[in-house]
Amino acid sequence: MSDRLSPLRDVAKSLSLDAVALVPGANFQRIFGASFHQNERPLMVLIPVDGAPAAVVPNLEMGSFAAIGFEGEVFDWKDQTGYQAAFDAMFSQTPLERIGVEGQSMRVFVHHAMKKARASLEISDAQREIAALRLCKNESEIASLRKAIAVSETALAETIDLVKVGITEKEIESILIQKMFAAGADEFSFDPIVACGSNSARPHAHARHDVPIKPGDALLIDFGAKVEGLCADITRTFFIAHCDDRCQDIYNTVLDANLAGAAIVKPGVSAHEIDDTTTRVLENSSYADRIRHKTGHGLGRDIHEDPYIMRGNNEIMETGMVFTIEPGLYQLDDFGVRIEDDILVTSSGFESLTSFDKSLTIIA
Amino acid sequence: MSDRLSPLRDVAKSLSLDAVALVPGANFQRIFGASFHQNERPLMVLIPVDGAPAAVVPNLEMGSFAAIGFEGEVFDWKDQTGYQAAFDAMFSQTPLERIGVEGQSMRVFVHHAMKKARASLEISDAQREIAALRLCKNESEIASLRKAIAVSETALAETIDLVKVGITEKEIESILIQKMFAAGADEFSFDPIVACGSNSARPHAHARHDVPIKPGDALLIDFGAKVEGLCADITRTFFIAHCDDRCQDIYNTVLDANLAGAAIVKPGVSAHEIDDTTTRVLENSSYADRIRHKTGHGLGRDIHEDPYIMRGNNEIMETGMVFTIEPGLYQLDDFGVRIEDDILVTSSGFESLTSFDKSLTIIA
Repeated sequence: MSDRLSPLRDVAKSLSLDAVALVPGANFQRIFGASFHQNERPLMVLIPVDGAPAAVVPNLEMGSFAAIGFEGEVFDWKDQTGYQAAFDAMFSQTPLERIGVEGQSMRVFVHHAMKKARASLEISDAQREIAALRLCKNESEIASLRKAIAVSETALAETIDLVKVGITEKEIESILIQKMFAAGADEFSFDPIVACGSNSARPHAHARHDVPIKPGDALLIDFGAKVEGLCADITRTFFIAHCDDRCQDIYNTVLDANLAGAAIVKPGVSAHEIDDTTTRVLENSSYADRIRHKTGHGLGRDIHEDPYIMRGNNEIMETGMVFTIEPGLYQLDDFGVRIEDDILVTSSGFESLTSFDKSLTIIA
Repeated sequence: MSDRLSPLRDVAKSLSLDAVALVPGANFQRIFGASFHQNERPLMVLIPVDGAPAAVVPNLEMGSFAAIGFEGEVFDWKDQTGYQAAFDAMFSQTPLERIGVEGQSMRVFVHHAMKKARASLEISDAQREIAALRLCKNESEIASLRKAIAVSETALAETIDLVKVGITEKEIESILIQKMFAAGADEFSFDPIVACGSNSARPHAHARHDVPIKPGDALLIDFGAKVEGLCADITRTFFIAHCDDRCQDIYNTVLDANLAGAAIVKPGVSAHEIDDTTTRVLENSSYADRIRHKTGHGLGRDIHEDPYIMRGNNEIMETGMVFTIEPGLYQLDDFGVRIEDDILVTSSGFESLTSFDKSLTIIA
């Protein structure tokens, strides 16, 4: 029997587990085509190697859950009585002992509820193996990614047209978000990073209300729209009004690294090699002390997912994988530069799904 | 010694634990004044009953982490080598055996990393006790809530002015989001719910691209802006073009419940009593079969937090608590109505922080 749950049964089997469990998130959404919030009300689906699946569902969500056409028994629970009885009932009907979970998504209170239902349960982290089912994107996912990137690039172009000396990071962020939704974003992939001057040297900076941008600042914008469940992720770094030789040299070093990394991408190349090729450009420059992070991460329904483009990761590129190449150089008392593209592995090499100009650009 | 960590040390002591652990989120933000993403890179702070705290921090975040002025030792880790060694090093320096965690925020892979570092560790869920430190809002938090609500109500008023027959849920959602950011939102509290017709009967509906609103539809909008870390949460239900007697009767039943619940709020009243008073109005109507959820939830840095306004919860209201009163009636093949206000407990009773008109309103 092959059905939408078969790949998950196969994951469980390959790990010698009795079942895998899914909570709301990227894996759940891809299989069931529906999103639920991860809030104080646990929702979990259990897919055994053999036999019918089962689910614990907040009664409040039963209307939405019915729409996914779930194949197994549903143990719903109400706020007033709590969720433990639903977990107890689910486990009382099945003998399973070893289950794999999404370690980066499942929260500890769900883990505890399962252990309370069956103390002998062995719960292991199958994050990587479950998420691997999403490694190679299908045509519909790639089409959605293209839409998400087009929306993002439109919003970025419209936003930088409005950047003037004296505007704050927060004001730029607000404009960017409005432009994204005006252009057709469903959500954003993550809270945008809009950082100028020394704040741009924090790879995950937060936009500030009280710091106006000034001539000579670097302005780093890292953001992305989400469309049809797929995440764009783009970074560009601009300079305000002017840019001295040293800043140009740093910028062009990052750009060289970005181009060098993408150039070697094709099926059969490893994640290690891509990071190594990219990072060596940075290491061989005068700015090696400004390296702070690896080259990139996979991109899809999660904003960060496999394959991680990192030395030591010998995962081999296959047609349909999508990931970022985003080298950066950062110095806390100075500034940061990052240039990030979304790269699709094709049968003949690669395609950069992002096409926003990345030559050194002075704005405002 | 009293410092910003003392309340957490007291929580650990009161639960006979050796320490509590915090991950990024509402509790972390309130104490340290900073936000970090919960992504594939674990970040965790450990606060023992006695002695210095410690932290596991991704090297990438060290610049941002330095800004919080952390009081203890930091074990940073790089992508290339992974996080386990940092957890191992942290636990090798401390004899603790029993720790409490935020069960609704901490993810299983962090739980696993701690257990791998010390197999004998007992990890219990201290979600409720840790979050209880945020139960009563201070003046600055209430001021931020007022801002978040003002931004939200401005955006809602501007949005419904633009609603016309034929517009889709998704288009309304996009306008609402743009108006929120134009009005000064930092983020949104949660993905807005914009649902018309039968979709409004799903308490956590998703806006649809392909369903235009039509005369006679109910239009339920549940959303909120986040400002300075505090979350607004407002629901209003409108009717498009006209509203028949039965719909009016259902709407006014929900409104009566909303008003009845708020009316009894004052210090000393229990969460149980507020839900009971609210829900009894619904139960005593002809629409009791349309009840789907409890009356409300606490509101602050988390969009859902204690106190939960629910029968069986005997938690007593205190000055400074903030929660929603949001009765609703839903029928899947018909429509849903929900009317939600944000209520502050004051020394003399209550104040509704939301002031958006809730009399039956026909729009478009």
